[in-house]
Amino acid sequence: MHFLQVLSGCGVYDGSEVHEASAVMVHLSRGGADVAVFAPDVDQMHVINHTKGEPSDEKRNVLVESARIARGKIAALSTLDVGGHDAVILPGGFGAAKNLCTFAVDGPDCKVNPEVEKTIKSFHEAKKPIGLCCIAPVLAAKLIPGCSVTVGNDQEEGGRWPYAGTAGAVGKMGATHIRRDVNEVHVDTENKIVTTPAFMCETKLHEIYDGVGHMVKEVLDMV
Amino acid sequence: MHFLQVLSGCGVYDGSEVHEASAVMVHLSRGGADVAVFAPDVDQMHVINHTKGEPSDEKRNVLVESARIARGKIAALSTLDVGGHDAVILPGGFGAAKNLCTFAVDGPDCKVNPEVEKTIKSFHEAKKPIGLCCIAPVLAAKLIPGCSVTVGNDQEEGGRWPYAGTAGAVGKMGATHIRRDVNEVHVDTENKIVTTPAFMCETKLHEIYDGVGHMVKEVLDMV
Repeated sequence: MHFLQVLSGCGVYDGSEVHEASAVMVHLSRGGADVAVFAPDVDQMHVINHTKGEPSDEKRNVLVESARIARGKIAALSTLDVGGHDAVILPGGFGAAKNLCTFAVDGPDCKVNPEVEKTIKSFHEAKKPIGLCCIAPVLAAKLIPGCSVTVGNDQEEGGRWPYAGTAGAVGKMGATHIRRDVNEVHVDTENKIVTTPAFMCETKLHEIYDGVGHMVKEVLDMV
Repeated sequence: MHFLQVLSGCGVYDGSEVHEASAVMVHLSRGGADVAVFAPDVDQMHVINHTKGEPSDEKRNVLVESARIARGKIAALSTLDVGGHDAVILPGGFGAAKNLCTFAVDGPDCKVNPEVEKTIKSFHEAKKPIGLCCIAPVLAAKLIPGCSVTVGNDQEEGGRWPYAGTAGAVGKMGATHIRRDVNEVHVDTENKIVTTPAFMCETKLHEIYDGVGHMVKEVLDMV
């Protein structure tokens, strides 16, 4: 099996969430799948100093920073041949909502990077499975009319779901939001889309890891 | 249990190896341990463009970049109170040999960052366990006379052990090198040092993850 993972940088606040991206790769490795990593060759929306949570003056490139997670084995999304891959997975981190689309700024009215849009639509049209976690399911909600996804819980629950409002935005984009806990996945069987909340939930890291593992397993089972 | 993880940046070629650092945190989370992440507040030796494997003109700070793995929950190593922690773990990546010490440049004659030296020696003197993987065991070899560690195999074996020469450097620093495979650990019981090869071995990611897990478990069992 040949999997594609699309990254959005390296670091939760301006790129791919590194633990989610790593968990995807560990679970795919254990499942016997090859993973090719791609990212758009574009500037990040901005660079966040992760010790402060504040933007810095730097400029960084999504492909170059994603290569830190990919250990250098990465290619520009513009060069992707969808035919060579059985499924695609997109982990979360704010990069998915800042660099792959503009959801972090524009909400339901967001624009999606054209290469990311082409990639997701191509996998969908080829009836190949798409796995997403954390905030990345907003990409499916925006691009695949009538699909259903989870971004976790739509109620705050004392800080356990700090981004609970995202579920409402999913509905405004024409998709259906399905409430799921961090150890659960939602499978949209018709559209072959598998989603899990991951770091939308404030919880222990091994629960994030296991939730991502469930998502990866469902996608593996669809290939 | 309160664990300390010391990071050296974010990215295999100039910082902490992100998959090793994440694996440490996942396994500690599953083992019921808290993890506090610290890093020295110093400039990186250099910044490597991970798509090319070449240095760029940028300057980056070890603490600030490590915060990408720590999701912002990190502190400067200068502020560490060793008394509050039961054990310390240092993952690999070239950052351990470039930013925590100068092994990547100076080999056995390397100098160790004074805060890193103080940290490792303090845990050793307090008879608290120390876990290291990948290239990080050279820090123990340099700082703890007569200890024994593994950095994997001392023979190349057709590219599976691309850094096999490191074992010889361990010997030159006065430590004993113990040959171990990626799914094994070496435990120096007297010095309470646990080491495993991790990415010193060119292998599948889930084997790295599991090897790090064995190391973490041995350290947890010592606390």
